[in-house]
Amino acid sequence: MVAQTKGDVKDIGLASQGILRIEWAAREMQVLRLVRERFARERPLEGLRLSACLHVTTETANLALALRDGGASVALCASNPLSTQDDVAAALVSEYGIPTFAIHGEDHETYYRHIHSALDHGPHYTMDDGADLVTVLHKERRELIGGVLGGTEETTTGVIRLRSQAREGMLEYPIVAVNEADTKHLFDNRYGTGQSTVDGVTRATNVLWAGKQVVVCGYGWCGRGIAMRVRGLGGHVIVTEVDPVRALEAVMDGYRVAPVLEAASDGDVFITATGDVKVIDEEALARMKDGAILANSGHFNVEIDIPALEAMSEGKRHMRSSVEEYRLKDGRRLYLLGEGRLINLAAAEGHPSSVMDMSFANQALCVEYLAGLQERPTRDVHPVPVDIDRTIAALKLNSLGVSIDSLTDEQLRYLESWEEGT
Amino acid sequence: MVAQTKGDVKDIGLASQGILRIEWAAREMQVLRLVRERFARERPLEGLRLSACLHVTTETANLALALRDGGASVALCASNPLSTQDDVAAALVSEYGIPTFAIHGEDHETYYRHIHSALDHGPHYTMDDGADLVTVLHKERRELIGGVLGGTEETTTGVIRLRSQAREGMLEYPIVAVNEADTKHLFDNRYGTGQSTVDGVTRATNVLWAGKQVVVCGYGWCGRGIAMRVRGLGGHVIVTEVDPVRALEAVMDGYRVAPVLEAASDGDVFITATGDVKVIDEEALARMKDGAILANSGHFNVEIDIPALEAMSEGKRHMRSSVEEYRLKDGRRLYLLGEGRLINLAAAEGHPSSVMDMSFANQALCVEYLAGLQERPTRDVHPVPVDIDRTIAALKLNSLGVSIDSLTDEQLRYLESWEEGT
Amino acid sequence: MVAQTKGDVKDIGLASQGILRIEWAAREMQVLRLVRERFARERPLEGLRLSACLHVTTETANLALALRDGGASVALCASNPLSTQDDVAAALVSEYGIPTFAIHGEDHETYYRHIHSALDHGPHYTMDDGADLVTVLHKERRELIGGVLGGTEETTTGVIRLRSQAREGMLEYPIVAVNEADTKHLFDNRYGTGQSTVDGVTRATNVLWAGKQVVVCGYGWCGRGIAMRVRGLGGHVIVTEVDPVRALEAVMDGYRVAPVLEAASDGDVFITATGDVKVIDEEALARMKDGAILANSGHFNVEIDIPALEAMSEGKRHMRSSVEEYRLKDGRRLYLLGEGRLINLAAAEGHPSSVMDMSFANQALCVEYLAGLQERPTRDVHPVPVDIDRTIAALKLNSLGVSIDSLTDEQLRYLESWEEGT
Amino acid sequence: MVAQTKGDVKDIGLASQGILRIEWAAREMQVLRLVRERFARERPLEGLRLSACLHVTTETANLALALRDGGASVALCASNPLSTQDDVAAALVSEYGIPTFAIHGEDHETYYRHIHSALDHGPHYTMDDGADLVTVLHKERRELIGGVLGGTEETTTGVIRLRSQAREGMLEYPIVAVNEADTKHLFDNRYGTGQSTVDGVTRATNVLWAGKQVVVCGYGWCGRGIAMRVRGLGGHVIVTEVDPVRALEAVMDGYRVAPVLEAASDGDVFITATGDVKVIDEEALARMKDGAILANSGHFNVEIDIPALEAMSEGKRHMRSSVEEYRLKDGRRLYLLGEGRLINLAAAEGHPSSVMDMSFANQALCVEYLAGLQERPTRDVHPVPVDIDRTIAALKLNSLGVSIDSLTDEQLRYLESWEEGT
Repeated sequence: MVAQTKGDVKDIGLASQGILRIEWAAREMQVLRLVRERFARERPLEGLRLSACLHVTTETANLALALRDGGASVALCASNPLSTQDDVAAALVSEYGIPTFAIHGEDHETYYRHIHSALDHGPHYTMDDGADLVTVLHKERRELIGGVLGGTEETTTGVIRLRSQAREGMLEYPIVAVNEADTKHLFDNRYGTGQSTVDGVTRATNVLWAGKQVVVCGYGWCGRGIAMRVRGLGGHVIVTEVDPVRALEAVMDGYRVAPVLEAASDGDVFITATGDVKVIDEEALARMKDGAILANSGHFNVEIDIPALEAMSEGKRHMRSSVEEYRLKDGRRLYLLGEGRLINLAAAEGHPSSVMDMSFANQALCVEYLAGLQERPTRDVHPVPVDIDRTIAALKLNSLGVSIDSLTDEQLRYLESWEEGT
Repeated sequence: MVAQTKGDVKDIGLASQGILRIEWAAREMQVLRLVRERFARERPLEGLRLSACLHVTTETANLALALRDGGASVALCASNPLSTQDDVAAALVSEYGIPTFAIHGEDHETYYRHIHSALDHGPHYTMDDGADLVTVLHKERRELIGGVLGGTEETTTGVIRLRSQAREGMLEYPIVAVNEADTKHLFDNRYGTGQSTVDGVTRATNVLWAGKQVVVCGYGWCGRGIAMRVRGLGGHVIVTEVDPVRALEAVMDGYRVAPVLEAASDGDVFITATGDVKVIDEEALARMKDGAILANSGHFNVEIDIPALEAMSEGKRHMRSSVEEYRLKDGRRLYLLGEGRLINLAAAEGHPSSVMDMSFANQALCVEYLAGLQERPTRDVHPVPVDIDRTIAALKLNSLGVSIDSLTDEQLRYLESWEEGT
Repeated sequence: MVAQTKGDVKDIGLASQGILRIEWAAREMQVLRLVRERFARERPLEGLRLSACLHVTTETANLALALRDGGASVALCASNPLSTQDDVAAALVSEYGIPTFAIHGEDHETYYRHIHSALDHGPHYTMDDGADLVTVLHKERRELIGGVLGGTEETTTGVIRLRSQAREGMLEYPIVAVNEADTKHLFDNRYGTGQSTVDGVTRATNVLWAGKQVVVCGYGWCGRGIAMRVRGLGGHVIVTEVDPVRALEAVMDGYRVAPVLEAASDGDVFITATGDVKVIDEEALARMKDGAILANSGHFNVEIDIPALEAMSEGKRHMRSSVEEYRLKDGRRLYLLGEGRLINLAAAEGHPSSVMDMSFANQALCVEYLAGLQERPTRDVHPVPVDIDRTIAALKLNSLGVSIDSLTDEQLRYLESWEEGT
Repeated sequence: MVAQTKGDVKDIGLASQGILRIEWAAREMQVLRLVRERFARERPLEGLRLSACLHVTTETANLALALRDGGASVALCASNPLSTQDDVAAALVSEYGIPTFAIHGEDHETYYRHIHSALDHGPHYTMDDGADLVTVLHKERRELIGGVLGGTEETTTGVIRLRSQAREGMLEYPIVAVNEADTKHLFDNRYGTGQSTVDGVTRATNVLWAGKQVVVCGYGWCGRGIAMRVRGLGGHVIVTEVDPVRALEAVMDGYRVAPVLEAASDGDVFITATGDVKVIDEEALARMKDGAILANSGHFNVEIDIPALEAMSEGKRHMRSSVEEYRLKDGRRLYLLGEGRLINLAAAEGHPSSVMDMSFANQALCVEYLAGLQERPTRDVHPVPVDIDRTIAALKLNSLGVSIDSLTDEQLRYLESWEEGT
């Protein structure tokens, strides 16, 4: 029966490896494990259908299992063509009975076909990572919108898109911005993206970071995580920014800050993390040193102007896994990693399980929260309730064996009074 | 005439040294210098009276000069009995014509008398650092409230007090929370307090930080600045917190996190930065090692329970400037620095000018903003307008010789759209 | 012809991938490239036979090519059963005409058979990494010793073994301790081992370092490299040492220092880097937390007491590539990475090319130096000539685009005089 | 009687403050305290006269007391005109009976007169810090040389001078290079100089380090200590070097490396730590930005070319304690700190007691060692015996509450064997 679960995966024979790897991830996901155990007892999602568009990784599998144990029926598709782990997809379908539509390296058409397959599930709730599923739903599957009660969104990029959509009055149901939970964006975007982006570049290239000039475009939470880790490995960081306050923080944090075009001629490695388009454009590419390495950590592969790079080139070689050599007409060689897609998933394993633990505990608790509301919230982007955030942080500390203080009554009173002075 | 400026200072003969030191601070305050130059041309504060309760330091002197050149008549008192630099006070009175009421080490009564003197000025605007002046005004000088149009507040502590006051409907005029400008709290509270707190402890004790166990109570902006600098000097940091999200950040930032009572027995040096009361209480004092050093970086001297320490002691010696040895009844000796008052002002020179540059540019621009409003804002605590923040950051970057990028039209458009996906 | 080169490799068909990867490594090995170019012109090794026992990696391939272009005939075997890159071995044999005897994962017997094959070459010089080849030569192939003029040794472990051998009068020919060149051990052991060890653990486990308790056994050059990088990734480092001076340095560098048995119960991840045996012994294993991860960065797989671990276990599972789960009789699970072999080669790609560049430039120049000597040095372990060290450092700086100062005549004179005082 | 101790100090009335401060330093000098306690019991220096030329600080006072309690008769003079703490000198003379000749700010003539006074003591042993006393002894007081049995030297600079003297056959008695003990130079030069140099600049200027461009000339142990601490405070470090290996380490440690002339135009603060002359020369001064700050951390005030600076200037103002403003003829202003003398003593309190603890335990134990030798060593510069080094490190760890492992017999045997291989 389980074997008859729907799905479109690469090779169902990979399931046994996937099972072990999902279990491995579970070791580091103790908050989600506690949530799952409670869900199994309380079944708060009984009878609900979810369509989830997420990176199909070992951590997502653990989320799917928690939702399933909470009573939900979940269908899953990939939120990026390069991020699917085929053994996990196989395990989800053949072992855990989660319909999954995702193949590593799938083409553009298959990618969107799989989103449609996940939507065919007829969701009460959507779970998105970049807002592709929500967008398809709003543009091409409007017949389903009436049945959708709410959704969640995992990333900065997706939240930006959804806010913009809501501003135009085009968002048809409420969405919780999981990304904006403190226990999500302060951790996943900083410690998770920081480590895994650097890891992706290391696996792709095996370069020594010590002494390298590394240009980090963007000093948001992701960018500062990357900068912190590159420095931790001995790299010389150059930050580029458009926001003067963030740029000033980067200076005070000890980093060189420069415009992209100035950094372009000094960098050995470039990493984009801005959420914006053409951050490394043709002019920047034109100034780079022979041998420069280009990677993107942002959600979409638009931060480096790859069409411009293609147009400037007269040849291309696949040097190593995830490394493409572009031979430019002027003789220089530039190396694009992971086709400019988010490098931590393209060349490494994405965020470590330990940070996804918190992000996905947020996902699970936010769906529970939406399902438990008496009144439907407005068709807008909503914050994660503060209680969920604090609960997750406290559980995580506990799982790390760390205790903290709590305020005494006297301290609480003091904070609330204004009369005591010097 | 200038010589006849009112004031109560320690020794007017210190003025010449004060003048040079004010000039020295000006070197690092290039944003405020630009504001002052514009103010001198435009005179936006013409005819306004300001009563300011601030740490009377070289940086405050530069702010007072900017306000004066903008047309305001400023009277100044100290916001902490130990933070006044007597040479600066002398210079303000005798050279710059700013009525100043502040004496380093003044007693409690004098401290409050000086606040009254500053209020006697009959302010249109108040400028506060900890909300003592506003509190006295509301409690004891209500006859002046009718004339007050607005105010600004510099610190976390003050904003907490004012918010609490506003919540109770007791705040009689609008106040701008300068502390919450990004260019204030992200810099002054982190880089400024971080460096100067560590500097204060170093000057008081001359201990080697490398290898020391240093307990930092509180992981707000100040606490994380302190922790960062202690680690930068080779110290082993132990963070204590009451907020689970902050505690988790501290863990992920590489610090040991523990409850105060557990840290108490391990610490060589303790630094409080919480804004709350009795963070180090009698029970913690009872567990400390012989020789432990206690310092406070928070606004008020209530974070360490000094009355408890006194009660536990059988003797006291003044070992060095800013170092009091308490001989406990059980034989241990504990060392309290700067009487438990904010150590960066008690034993060092407070925030370096370069961060006060931004905080005080905010002060100057916020008073100008209030003065320029057509309509009076509500009697509440208001944020600093975003434009002021960005302007200050951009000017500061410029003064550091750093350029940054700006968004292209295509990039702006991209950020505002939601239709482009994977 | 080239196709008829002798060798024993896994799959000759992997050669094309090996060729590209060798070229990729060459990008980062600019010092060795300059040496190779000069060797090709000057042929200083004309007619000499070398037997080299080295990790068969892309970097070693570049060294072999430099030696070949210098006129030498080189035979190569692996210095560790798990470190061979099969595509490189294939490329060396089929494309570059270097007899190579090395298969990834070869068993103990094959490992030693391959050493014999390399020795069958009848070397004038030996090149070793861990002293296995020299040991076999001295113990089992003494018929060849008469023809050997000298050798080089790459590692700390090997140098310790050879010194011990020389002390007993058992070393039959002079060996240059390449490991002790500043441009070798200060860089390769610190920045190379540091990064690649952490990389190996990351690839094997995908754990988040931030917040983890990581026990680093040994604070020699390798250990401090590892500690530095773990901290750079947000880990909480606990150092164990037997040397009080090094232990004190670790404390002053900001690390917690503790005995192994104390660290055992706190650690989430353990990494050994001591060059000694049973650093993590049965008693330490008995105290570890459920789920602890064990890795070794030292040359031999003796630092963790694996036989003890086996004896304590009642079952074993292969969780992921390079991760073995041991289920202990008491119910705990411990995870051993890469069979306890040096993790940077077992689970990652070994030192990044950029540091091997300097180590292998030392190898090439030391063989040239030995070959150029008029008089044979004593049968002892000899240092790398200082000139070689400085030349390599200067070339490396140059390749990084960094210029430095040189002493003026006046400065040189000053350093040599003793008469000028205060 | 004690009151009749010889000496030349500023103000004997400062003694009571000196006593407290000497006691304060003793808190952090637990190794020296243990040595002193043993000396008091064993009296190993009974009847010996010592002439010591050291920075007259609270730590030196503790050393003098240990030597005195060991039975020696000690006379003390200053090793730098600006480093004397007058209260300490007063306490030594009036309370502790140590003849002391040292006045803060003494002129060149007095400085040398005081050295003669210390030599008048007729020493069996000399103790030097920079070799000025030894040089005067060899050049002007040769009548005393016959009575001198040996000496010790504290600094890099002194050891360089003495080695040069010994090479020329001009050194008349053996000297132990205390500076080269691991427990001295690895700690004092790195953690001590690092922290206290930065502290000196902070106290002199109160600049914010975060975001500043700080040029550190020299990457020896002192230079790397300074660079480490500047980075720890958020500064952007630029290292200058003449040694390619050290320069390369600096690059790999994450610092920008550049020639002095290139760094000159970028630096906000310059700190020299090379032991050489004219490191910042006229050409460098000519390129600096208006407002640049100059400090020296090396032993002598020759690293910055002060005569050139004087010649380039048309005016000078004393801005703050330890800050001299030079107004250059081209309009720029440069700020020289502490007259170019070692800034950690000129503007701060020198090395923290905790590092001097180890340096001075070395001094005390090395004099004991010399006094206990049966045979007089050669007239050369000798290393500190390894046992002394290890003993001190072990005592220091103990005082910090840190335990470490020791090698098992099996581990010792393994390290000594060469036969076990892969």
